[in-house]
Amino acid sequence: MRSELAASAPATIANLGPGFDVVGAALEEPRDRVEVKLVAEPSIVVRVEGTYASEVPSGEGNVCYVVAQEVLKRAEHRGGLRITLFKEVPPASGLGSSGASSAATAFAVNKALGEPLTSMETLLSALEGERYAAGAPHADNAAPSLLGGVVFIYSYNPLKLLRVDPPQGIHVVIATPLIRWAEKKTYLARQVLPKRISLKKMVKQLGGLVPLVAGIARGDPKLMGEGVNMDFVVEPARAKLIPRFKETKKAALKAGAYGCSISGAGPSIFALASPQTSSSVAKAMANVLESFSIDYRMLITKFSREGARIEG
Amino acid sequence: MRSELAASAPATIANLGPGFDVVGAALEEPRDRVEVKLVAEPSIVVRVEGTYASEVPSGEGNVCYVVAQEVLKRAEHRGGLRITLFKEVPPASGLGSSGASSAATAFAVNKALGEPLTSMETLLSALEGERYAAGAPHADNAAPSLLGGVVFIYSYNPLKLLRVDPPQGIHVVIATPLIRWAEKKTYLARQVLPKRISLKKMVKQLGGLVPLVAGIARGDPKLMGEGVNMDFVVEPARAKLIPRFKETKKAALKAGAYGCSISGAGPSIFALASPQTSSSVAKAMANVLESFSIDYRMLITKFSREGARIEG
Repeated sequence: MRSELAASAPATIANLGPGFDVVGAALEEPRDRVEVKLVAEPSIVVRVEGTYASEVPSGEGNVCYVVAQEVLKRAEHRGGLRITLFKEVPPASGLGSSGASSAATAFAVNKALGEPLTSMETLLSALEGERYAAGAPHADNAAPSLLGGVVFIYSYNPLKLLRVDPPQGIHVVIATPLIRWAEKKTYLARQVLPKRISLKKMVKQLGGLVPLVAGIARGDPKLMGEGVNMDFVVEPARAKLIPRFKETKKAALKAGAYGCSISGAGPSIFALASPQTSSSVAKAMANVLESFSIDYRMLITKFSREGARIEG
Repeated sequence: MRSELAASAPATIANLGPGFDVVGAALEEPRDRVEVKLVAEPSIVVRVEGTYASEVPSGEGNVCYVVAQEVLKRAEHRGGLRITLFKEVPPASGLGSSGASSAATAFAVNKALGEPLTSMETLLSALEGERYAAGAPHADNAAPSLLGGVVFIYSYNPLKLLRVDPPQGIHVVIATPLIRWAEKKTYLARQVLPKRISLKKMVKQLGGLVPLVAGIARGDPKLMGEGVNMDFVVEPARAKLIPRFKETKKAALKAGAYGCSISGAGPSIFALASPQTSSSVAKAMANVLESFSIDYRMLITKFSREGARIEG
């Protein structure tokens, strides 16, 4: 047990095109940081600092509270916690913001308690944060944020994961249009999805998953990018919610990106590119958004093998 | 050009559980054999011999005729052909019978002509046989029969393939209940499929494809078998058409099979097993069918790297 420690967990890209609810990948940055302190008094207090502090609730309304409570319960620990969250993953961007806070908290509290929980129990605790934030315990952000790499959640009941190291030498270009969403963004982004799809479309979507999985397994960025571009169900439905998505994607591919799609529920648009082309890809995407007077944030990062980690 | 030669192509297992219309794998046996002879007279004559000669049409009604015609057309060859098909892949069993005849013919005729066609053109010629036999040019039997290994057909328009060597050290146990199907068996097996599925089920099916693809890519039979068992759409619908499918599958898994599902459109039931357990798995499956007085054929074989090949 260490009475005080800090840990962080990264932003993530869920879906990666055709892998809706099935796959997510950890990014090198940004990372949510969490400082935890064990206290005798059996209460949990959550303070929030950092760039996006004003955009998430503090106290009991924060996912960190829910996750910390779950870890204490599973560990049968009677004391309490003082938690400070340094919120650096932008909320409501489709970059797994709540997943990063949840993963960092579950990891940090478990470490502080001397690791009473297994890795799977730690993940299940983090998923309570996702259940609280999104209404369902989807693991495609929290799992890669906790474990790093690319994580396939190939079964939910029971929960079954397959973790793979990400392909090396890929840059991930992320453009986040700064649009105002309704408060329940993830809910809205699910509402636009078709409830039922044709068998034919399912076959096309299954086909798309093949180059995605095989490209990641082989470390082949071109094949992976080909897979990213083969989402026939979710991207077409969600594209409407993101201003100038089609034009931005087209520009990214024309500038040499391997693949481009919506990150998680959006509105972030991600493109995979070689280190040589990533700045041109970013510029091409930026040009489109600027030409339509859409404010945006732009980030060039990489996939990360590393998930949640102790911070010095 | 060689005026006379013989070639063969193997039976195949399509779908492998969740990969409906997306994946097929070549088997070591049985193989259809084709002998072709170039003749000056511009006609094609097809004779059929072999174990299952009486179960397929001869002459213009045979897929070999259609495929040979297509190869001649693509090669712009003006002569004709005399073809003898030795039919050893049982028709209407779900083992890619027409795909094997088509692949062997396309391969043999192209070789006899001095290989004027590329590998992709040869495949497209073979697919004309599938279009003729099944009403649609599905490639999940003909492609692995021609190319060997496991072939993912991840896009049909344009046709895109990914060929992977099969995992080593797996035995494939195949029980074929000898039931009378209506003539259009593949048609019937497609009729029972749901036209539309829920998004939720699509996600489960996508999940199933992950261990299948990753298991094959890693050469991990256990993971591959886990994938084979995760078909939530096609197997449940087609299971009704196959007498005692559920009991047979249950017995195979209980006897130690890695996975078990329907081969292609059925009625063959295949199970993946280790070399140590395959005979017990076969016996367990046979016991079920016998206990319900269902006649069957039983075969233990392996996946094959080799597709169509010249025969001495």
